[in-house]
Amino acid sequence: MMSSPCNTCHAQWPDDEYWIADLETTVAYLNDDQFFPGASLLVLKRHATELFQLTRRERTMLIEEVAAVARALMESFAAVKINYALLGNRVPHVHWHIIPRLIEDPAPSEAPWAVSNEPRRANPDELSERITSIRTSLTRGRRAVTSRG
Amino acid sequence: MMSSPCNTCHAQWPDDEYWIADLETTVAYLNDDQFFPGASLLVLKRHATELFQLTRRERTMLIEEVAAVARALMESFAAVKINYALLGNRVPHVHWHIIPRLIEDPAPSEAPWAVSNEPRRANPDELSERITSIRTSLTRGRRAVTSRG
Repeated sequence: MMSSPCNTCHAQWPDDEYWIADLETTVAYLNDDQFFPGASLLVLKRHATELFQLTRRERTMLIEEVAAVARALMESFAAVKINYALLGNRVPHVHWHIIPRLIEDPAPSEAPWAVSNEPRRANPDELSERITSIRTSLTRGRRAVTSRG
Repeated sequence: MMSSPCNTCHAQWPDDEYWIADLETTVAYLNDDQFFPGASLLVLKRHATELFQLTRRERTMLIEEVAAVARALMESFAAVKINYALLGNRVPHVHWHIIPRLIEDPAPSEAPWAVSNEPRRANPDELSERITSIRTSLTRGRRAVTSRG
């Protein structure tokens, strides 16, 4: 499936300690940099680098999963806004940054990448609490979606 | 449709001179800042601020349109990578930034918002040439998609 060596395909990134949930086409992780609390990643299970390389069905499933994670982050962190980005300038394997912007955000009108910051690691308690909270919201949200058909 | 005053809903942004094409759920524009040549916007026709506020059908159509514009930009600008972002920190009305990153990019491993720059306006010839090129690629690409069923 790969045209070139890919750390994501080789399971070298992201690290398992940040794992939230396996979805259908993607895997959700908490981002290791928690400068924006709740910042998460949604990584495509197969190798691709652009949206238009996916099938229509894959894109449909993917955007449902992006929306489900965004809704879970909105709920878990009482976010004001969600930021969604698929960049791939360093890691081309399709992965979304899904970033809740909270009421206490240090730069609410700026894109996350315009806010220079040292990476902020969560301590083990924060990590566990955030992952559990997102997982719970995600499970509840997806059950609600399923029950609506 | 609006819960609050919205410049986008009042057709005050983006400016018509940047119009590329009307798609089904969105309208495509060239971004007024052309620091990244070809940087474009895809603006949802109705008011919403988060992906999970849309219906599943709207999300499906939306992501198809995002992918179609990305493919057109890849072709028109011989891009190395496409960046896709739905942020909304200043303008909450759903709009995607779809930004081709070219071979001569000044900071290829950085997010667009991490590259500080003065806004770069295209001159009238560049504007016309870029819009025409994207429109042509978009029409060809969407015809191809339609013909594949």
